[in-house]
Amino acid sequence: MQVALHETERIDDLLTHDLKIIQSEEVFAFSLDAVLLARFCTVPPRGKIVDLCSGNGVIPLLLSTRTPAAEIWGVEIQERLAGMGKRNIELNGLQDRLHMVHADLKQIHRTLGASGYDLVTVNPPYLPVPAGEQNRNEHVAAARHELFCTLEDVVASSAKLLKTGGKMAMVHRPNRLVDICTLMRQYRVEPKRVRFVHPRQGEEAMMVLIEGIRDGKADMRTLPPLFVHEEGGRYCGELHAVFYGEKSELEAGGQKSPENERNRG
Amino acid sequence: MQVALHETERIDDLLTHDLKIIQSEEVFAFSLDAVLLARFCTVPPRGKIVDLCSGNGVIPLLLSTRTPAAEIWGVEIQERLAGMGKRNIELNGLQDRLHMVHADLKQIHRTLGASGYDLVTVNPPYLPVPAGEQNRNEHVAAARHELFCTLEDVVASSAKLLKTGGKMAMVHRPNRLVDICTLMRQYRVEPKRVRFVHPRQGEEAMMVLIEGIRDGKADMRTLPPLFVHEEGGRYCGELHAVFYGEKSELEAGGQKSPENERNRG
Repeated sequence: MQVALHETERIDDLLTHDLKIIQSEEVFAFSLDAVLLARFCTVPPRGKIVDLCSGNGVIPLLLSTRTPAAEIWGVEIQERLAGMGKRNIELNGLQDRLHMVHADLKQIHRTLGASGYDLVTVNPPYLPVPAGEQNRNEHVAAARHELFCTLEDVVASSAKLLKTGGKMAMVHRPNRLVDICTLMRQYRVEPKRVRFVHPRQGEEAMMVLIEGIRDGKADMRTLPPLFVHEEGGRYCGELHAVFYGEKSELEAGGQKSPENERNRG
Repeated sequence: MQVALHETERIDDLLTHDLKIIQSEEVFAFSLDAVLLARFCTVPPRGKIVDLCSGNGVIPLLLSTRTPAAEIWGVEIQERLAGMGKRNIELNGLQDRLHMVHADLKQIHRTLGASGYDLVTVNPPYLPVPAGEQNRNEHVAAARHELFCTLEDVVASSAKLLKTGGKMAMVHRPNRLVDICTLMRQYRVEPKRVRFVHPRQGEEAMMVLIEGIRDGKADMRTLPPLFVHEEGGRYCGELHAVFYGEKSELEAGGQKSPENERNRG
């Protein structure tokens, strides 16, 4: 599949599964957050998935490898990124079940339909809109700061899209966890699984992965923590498997983590 | 100091610091939860502390070793336990600054006074009142189930006791974390530090330690996780230090955890 590349764009290998991805440092490059979220969430074997704040569509691409038949929509408000996402879908020949929509998530249930989705994933901007300085690059600023949507917008939109029993999975900064829990419960997406990501043993968490269920019962599991780096600076066994495509992170000496086995598509 | 022991009671060593404690398996024996909470919380050098659901007063005893001058009140609704708590204070000769009150925490601000305390600690009952079976021993049942107070009662009472900027520290089961965060925010005790306790690496959390600040700003730190057992079943370095009184868990090969250094009394 031949697709056009804009200036500053490049095609990278997307980790395992022979996927390719177009990205540009100038606009947005996918990060560890997206990779961890795509592995953490509970992916349905079929049905419908939406990825909000989808950027260049890295999460839909990664999710496609974990489900044989689910249809996946990426939603992105920035036109340039949504365009990149469309070309990423073509580049990987996934047009039959992946779709990129250039739209505002606050209204997206009107286009895609409310109460019909099995899973919503979202890697939203982490930072409140700053009073003073902010990243001068508008694309990067929008990915980092709540310029186009607040955390409440993200949770409210996800809740509208989900069917009863459908799941919402998000990656965020742990210092916002109380906001996240409060808002998810307020919009009736009850948090059920949380996993903290620490740079290494003995350090505070830098990231939180959380999954809730629409109209679920209050009862949350706290999964084993993930330490990104082992002593010596290498990636831990579990991430080594993610980045270098080994078949099983358990065999590869990673930590036992129940959700990996259950979630594997 | 000679104090009377009731039948079934015994005097145990209370870990480090040459403290002694009267307890009875028939009524209530202190556990890891209390020990970890007493170490986790931020203890003021002077001022006033209340420990709710105080049982036989183990937390006030442990806290007394971390503060040279603060005055500490234990509040316990079960008369037999409150009596044991009083004798524990005498046994250790701490009557000048430790006090045990036999009272219901829901009304305690009327006796002790509202908005005057620097720290409230609480190791509350973890389980909702069960529909069916429950522990037949009424004392144990009250320590485990929300018979005399709900989680909301605990948070509401703590909030009433605290001065602005005062801290509330609690240990609980992690599956109630969303309830805890929601209630703490509702009663204006903003969660600021959380630490998860896992039985061992690769397993889900069994306990959560959380500390909030009355009228604090939303911004929570997730501390390094604590693993109770190392490989081979031994206590981890940090807990080994707790139980066997070594001076420094860092020297003893424990995990680096910033709050230990900051909080050490």
